[in-house]
Amino acid sequence: MPHIPLAPDLPGIRGAMAFRPETAKPMNEIVEILLHGPHSLTAGERELIATYVSSRNCTEYCHNIHGAIAAAHLGGNEALVKQVKVDFTRAEISPKLKALLTIAGKVQKDGKLVTTADVEAARKEGATDLEIHDTVLIAAAFCMYNRYVDGLATALPDDPAFYRERGKRVARDGYVTVSKEYLAAHAAAVAR
Amino acid sequence: MPHIPLAPDLPGIRGAMAFRPETAKPMNEIVEILLHGPHSLTAGERELIATYVSSRNCTEYCHNIHGAIAAAHLGGNEALVKQVKVDFTRAEISPKLKALLTIAGKVQKDGKLVTTADVEAARKEGATDLEIHDTVLIAAAFCMYNRYVDGLATALPDDPAFYRERGKRVARDGYVTVSKEYLAAHAAAVAR
Repeated sequence: MPHIPLAPDLPGIRGAMAFRPETAKPMNEIVEILLHGPHSLTAGERELIATYVSSRNCTEYCHNIHGAIAAAHLGGNEALVKQVKVDFTRAEISPKLKALLTIAGKVQKDGKLVTTADVEAARKEGATDLEIHDTVLIAAAFCMYNRYVDGLATALPDDPAFYRERGKRVARDGYVTVSKEYLAAHAAAVAR
Repeated sequence: MPHIPLAPDLPGIRGAMAFRPETAKPMNEIVEILLHGPHSLTAGERELIATYVSSRNCTEYCHNIHGAIAAAHLGGNEALVKQVKVDFTRAEISPKLKALLTIAGKVQKDGKLVTTADVEAARKEGATDLEIHDTVLIAAAFCMYNRYVDGLATALPDDPAFYRERGKRVARDGYVTVSKEYLAAHAAAVAR
């Protein structure tokens, strides 16, 4: 049961966002830019960072939905997503992404844990300043989204099909488009 | 030294925001709505929540600047701000704000720590659903801002006058106006 009355048909962050559409708008714009917009890191790589951080924060809804979005971007490779959650050092991903995940994992705990050596290691694998910046911000932002979802005790669907289906939609259309759609549908339903 | 090249004249989150103005925009909109916009909680109360969370995350820049903004909203009462950081249970603030700070402190650690009893206690002191929602989101959002500032190792001014002066500006004009100003000045300086 959520701590405040949230729309029962909108689980996870969606219910929270429908409760407060004013803050939902910029919150969706942040992930649109960081995860879905044009970037030198692929959308799959960026979603893996978001999934990894959400998994370390033990936020079921977020690591399931972003894991599904990552898989949709990665040709349905759910095994790779799972491997990144369990132990990314043994996953079939680039050395650069491993170095960025190391940084993200430290930011998830405490930003002050990131060392010059961590950043140098990422640079040695070809990471740019923007990629390092965005890795830090993706990890930081998911420490917000995860706490938002958990702190309100939002509803958690347990059917993997739920995540798979919505993951495909978000991977295709992005966060702003998808959120506008369900927020508008919710507002219309409430107005009826 | 910041981990990536940030404008030396823009310490703390400002340098990071100038590096990536695309994400700075929605990030400033979130604090504008949560901390500066019209609300049933005073701006001082909301800034105390942000200050408290930043202090628990040991993010010097954020707890200094938001402490200064809080003090500006509270008639310059820096002693009250300090007391909230050290032990809010003994601070001269309302029982409702104490109950909300309890929730914020749990979200800072892990959103899953917030219990039905915590929320009931806040309701008993008169907290509304929106106030509970916004407390959770302020706490969650500062887990993002704090990690962003720390994860990039942004510059930290040690002159209290720096925070006092900027605190007054933000308290008066808000986040969006102030950030637009320094981001535009930075962009103009870079273009020269």
